[in-house]
Amino acid sequence: MSESKTGIIALLTDFGTRDYFVGAMKGVILSINCEAQIVDITHEIEPQNIKSAAFTLKSCYRNFPEKTIFVAVVDPGVGSNRKAIIVETEKYYFVAPDNGLLSFIYDETKDFRVYELTNKKYFLPSVSRTFHGRDIFAPVAAHLSRGVKPNELGAEIKDYIKLSGNQPRRISANIIEGEIIHTDHFGNLITNLTAEDLPEKFVLRVGEREITKAVEYFAEAETGEIFVIAGSAGNLEIAAFKDSAAKILKARTGMNIRLEKL
Amino acid sequence: MSESKTGIIALLTDFGTRDYFVGAMKGVILSINCEAQIVDITHEIEPQNIKSAAFTLKSCYRNFPEKTIFVAVVDPGVGSNRKAIIVETEKYYFVAPDNGLLSFIYDETKDFRVYELTNKKYFLPSVSRTFHGRDIFAPVAAHLSRGVKPNELGAEIKDYIKLSGNQPRRISANIIEGEIIHTDHFGNLITNLTAEDLPEKFVLRVGEREITKAVEYFAEAETGEIFVIAGSAGNLEIAAFKDSAAKILKARTGMNIRLEKL
Amino acid sequence: MSESKTGIIALLTDFGTRDYFVGAMKGVILSINCEAQIVDITHEIEPQNIKSAAFTLKSCYRNFPEKTIFVAVVDPGVGSNRKAIIVETEKYYFVAPDNGLLSFIYDETKDFRVYELTNKKYFLPSVSRTFHGRDIFAPVAAHLSRGVKPNELGAEIKDYIKLSGNQPRRISANIIEGEIIHTDHFGNLITNLTAEDLPEKFVLRVGEREITKAVEYFAEAETGEIFVIAGSAGNLEIAAFKDSAAKILKARTGMNIRLEKL
Repeated sequence: MSESKTGIIALLTDFGTRDYFVGAMKGVILSINCEAQIVDITHEIEPQNIKSAAFTLKSCYRNFPEKTIFVAVVDPGVGSNRKAIIVETEKYYFVAPDNGLLSFIYDETKDFRVYELTNKKYFLPSVSRTFHGRDIFAPVAAHLSRGVKPNELGAEIKDYIKLSGNQPRRISANIIEGEIIHTDHFGNLITNLTAEDLPEKFVLRVGEREITKAVEYFAEAETGEIFVIAGSAGNLEIAAFKDSAAKILKARTGMNIRLEKL
Repeated sequence: MSESKTGIIALLTDFGTRDYFVGAMKGVILSINCEAQIVDITHEIEPQNIKSAAFTLKSCYRNFPEKTIFVAVVDPGVGSNRKAIIVETEKYYFVAPDNGLLSFIYDETKDFRVYELTNKKYFLPSVSRTFHGRDIFAPVAAHLSRGVKPNELGAEIKDYIKLSGNQPRRISANIIEGEIIHTDHFGNLITNLTAEDLPEKFVLRVGEREITKAVEYFAEAETGEIFVIAGSAGNLEIAAFKDSAAKILKARTGMNIRLEKL
Repeated sequence: MSESKTGIIALLTDFGTRDYFVGAMKGVILSINCEAQIVDITHEIEPQNIKSAAFTLKSCYRNFPEKTIFVAVVDPGVGSNRKAIIVETEKYYFVAPDNGLLSFIYDETKDFRVYELTNKKYFLPSVSRTFHGRDIFAPVAAHLSRGVKPNELGAEIKDYIKLSGNQPRRISANIIEGEIIHTDHFGNLITNLTAEDLPEKFVLRVGEREITKAVEYFAEAETGEIFVIAGSAGNLEIAAFKDSAAKILKARTGMNIRLEKL
């Protein structure tokens, strides 16, 4: 639609929103490029949950305009010898620690290059051992938004870390086992199954509970009723109308689920 | 003061801030208009509480410059046959589901028009059944900010939904019954009464508790003391100095209150 | 790096993010200067905790570009006769209530001037007794960003309020007593001691617990292990790898700590 520009820097972290962390990152970015347009995706990824960060970024990055620079910092290994990387695709840039957070990009994208961030010229002058969001990732993103090229930031690497996917397992012709990979703000339980996995007649087991109802939209159900729905990120979700499925089912991220065709 | 422009898009939702929902909406807006200036009012409206959303928007929209586009998405009926609308007033645009969220505009504004959003040209190419914030409301707001006119988005309608107001009821010459319509971050209880309703000598009953003190500003009271104050949104509030009135009184949104003149 | 400009207005408050408060401030700013670039540092300072607000602002303001205007509103005395002030340093502007929140500026900065905000021309036309964030601080910051000078906002004052610092006390040659001054989102306990205070061999007492391990980066420790680390704000922090030190130690802001050299 409108012409793409490189000034958009979208942030996703587990830093929370009540400390100086996010403010420091934004200050660093604006000190380097005061025209940068900073967008908060979220700063409330569950602390150090790399899979949840990956799910969240994967679910929205395609909505952003070309040349958007994503800065994703969920970084339990900060200060150790884990690498810092930038991934360049045909459309986007992703700046992150090399801990598997960007695995979905490697799966979904045909043409991409991964560079290790080593050129200290684009870091803050003093790099702490505990806050690379401020000292490395933010300044690198800001320099990128001013036209610095990925290959100026460091050398291309091939040994980046890729997490083995959380793929559902087919147990038998009629049974698939999956997992709850995210619990959202409404208490909806997002699974790693997709709408295509859902037979017309089914039983979905979550702990002790059996779910047999599927709906197309929330208001189709009764208040408090538990059902399965094709979520807006493409995944199958377990939800309750005007209520929290997570609370009702006492379920949470990481639990196994079992889908049986009847 | 400064010249108005149409690029400001102010968001109010119940989507929370820890998922990809808000990021997706912002990405969609920036993909259509990369010059849009996105402002978060809040994304923490109590899930599906239309009245609380209405109170929040009503309390701040007049502070925004002319031509601001408000996108208000608290939408329990998403995916059903509830309409999506845009309301145009002399000063502002409001994009929302047609569920009564904008009732206060119909009350407070003389000249306004309501259009049903039906022109799919201004939606995302594929519209989900569960996330119209991303698929309909965000792109419509972005197109509007680029100069699309409300009547290009759909036909004017007259049968929009208006919630019957939460007006206090006069029980007798000396007694008014009202309601707590919102509990804020500080635990202040916002009522549907106004400062004009408050006699010089009074008893305000909240559950078992009787409040007889009114102050003009917080620091006038002792720490923990409960009092009545004219809030900054124009409503009468029940508050405690440096403490949470909601916790002390075990009170919450929806509770009735009774004001008696002495 | 890039040329400084005056359009950046960075907000730090205890208003929370679920009410209309922050939206109202942003609307007021944009109504006066629609080109202003508003940055949220945080709105989740513990309600009315001036020390925590000071620590947070102190830990990130230097990351912002020159001429940034900081608006810091933690204001238990709102509506009383406490002054509203602007502090001008060589690099920045700070707009805040005169309650000690900006004490660290007075300590860290050589050249600064403090002005009392008295010129009602730069306030909203009607000033409430409870919400100066919207009615005084936001409009003053916006006018400042349009070129109004501090001395047009009011007269210079010398009797501004300065909190006595929370300095650690040396009890004996080998013992220093300090305090936990902030608990962050990860449950890390930030103290008023610095890395220089830490001897090679030490015991740090927090309540019943004794800590004897120091690390340089988080991943150096075992999951759940408690240690001391030089934090990214320069303070000594008590932390746990992939866990919350605050929860494990049942510790919180305000608690005393005792560091003994062995």
